[in-house]
Amino acid sequence: MREHYHEELDVVVGKLVSMTEIVASMMERATAALLGAELVQAESVIATDDDVDNLNREIETLATDIIALQQPVAGDLRTCIACLRMANTVERAGDLARHVAKTARMRYPEKAVPTELEPVFREMGQVATAMMTEVGSILAARDVSRVEALELADDRMDDLHRQLFRALLAEDWPHGIEAAVDVTLLSRFYERFADHCVSMARRTVYLVTGHRVDEVG
Amino acid sequence: MREHYHEELDVVVGKLVSMTEIVASMMERATAALLGAELVQAESVIATDDDVDNLNREIETLATDIIALQQPVAGDLRTCIACLRMANTVERAGDLARHVAKTARMRYPEKAVPTELEPVFREMGQVATAMMTEVGSILAARDVSRVEALELADDRMDDLHRQLFRALLAEDWPHGIEAAVDVTLLSRFYERFADHCVSMARRTVYLVTGHRVDEVG
Repeated sequence: MREHYHEELDVVVGKLVSMTEIVASMMERATAALLGAELVQAESVIATDDDVDNLNREIETLATDIIALQQPVAGDLRTCIACLRMANTVERAGDLARHVAKTARMRYPEKAVPTELEPVFREMGQVATAMMTEVGSILAARDVSRVEALELADDRMDDLHRQLFRALLAEDWPHGIEAAVDVTLLSRFYERFADHCVSMARRTVYLVTGHRVDEVG
Repeated sequence: MREHYHEELDVVVGKLVSMTEIVASMMERATAALLGAELVQAESVIATDDDVDNLNREIETLATDIIALQQPVAGDLRTCIACLRMANTVERAGDLARHVAKTARMRYPEKAVPTELEPVFREMGQVATAMMTEVGSILAARDVSRVEALELADDRMDDLHRQLFRALLAEDWPHGIEAAVDVTLLSRFYERFADHCVSMARRTVYLVTGHRVDEVG
């Protein structure tokens, strides 16, 4: 039997999916702002982060109210708690997209990323955006068969992260310390963003199956 | 009237306080390992992180069981949910202490931190350790009057973070790119650790008073 609070629970999951879509778009636009030194784009990403924070708070309120007022059964309670945690994780991913945009803004009208590293960051942006979009789809469809592909995408992100560190630590890094600091932090933002996607995917597995997959550190 | 599940709730809060104590000690030892290039100390911090992850899982299970089986009233439900989220936050702080220890291990037998920056990192380690210890005390005592002092400590951490960036970006940074990369990431680990402490303190305010204080980004 379908409990009467299921519609409210669907609203919570729907808002969480919306959060992933907004954050995926933030990361896409932040990467464009970074590579194109586009100030307006960067500002718009930074402004969007408030919407993400608001959605996180809405989800917290709604999920807590369902728990308090409807006393959901085991599986639904797991969904409520998983949504609370995942909303927090997407919010942090949004913070990372905001950090990318802030780096673009800080260096404007210069570009923060040296020209020859642009392709690496472009791919990082694509991988990050695709991963978060996929997390939203997995969550909406509760289709955990797609989690493995997401882990592979995370491996690709780790490769790109290592590639940047090799470039940084090569004997002939020609761009000076400021660019090295920017590349170090930016690379970490993308890599952490991907980790958050994996963490959400694993939590979705837990939500759907009740079996826990280890957290990513 | 005191509900019969309050003892179980006290166990959850107690485990959360234990987590803060372990993580405070991790950050203290990670800083010692970093500044002294002490491999055994670094390894021990890295190993301790598993205990933190286990405690996080225990708290999740216990808090979820209380919610599912005891149907706590509003304030207690808030406590359960706040504990779930705070356990997650301390776990992430533990990850940051582990990252510091890993940096120490990666550079062993060299030191990752240039000699003249050691005092800054020493103070960062002291501030971070004191902040996490204080979060545990605030939580144990539910004494939100001490949150303001914690915010001041966070301001100090931000000062130290900026001080390191000024050193990095000075014309005459003499330590090369590898040290710049290490200092950039280390500085961020400490700064984020402090942010997590503030976030926990604010969540404790919410837990005790029911009034939300804005999240730190």
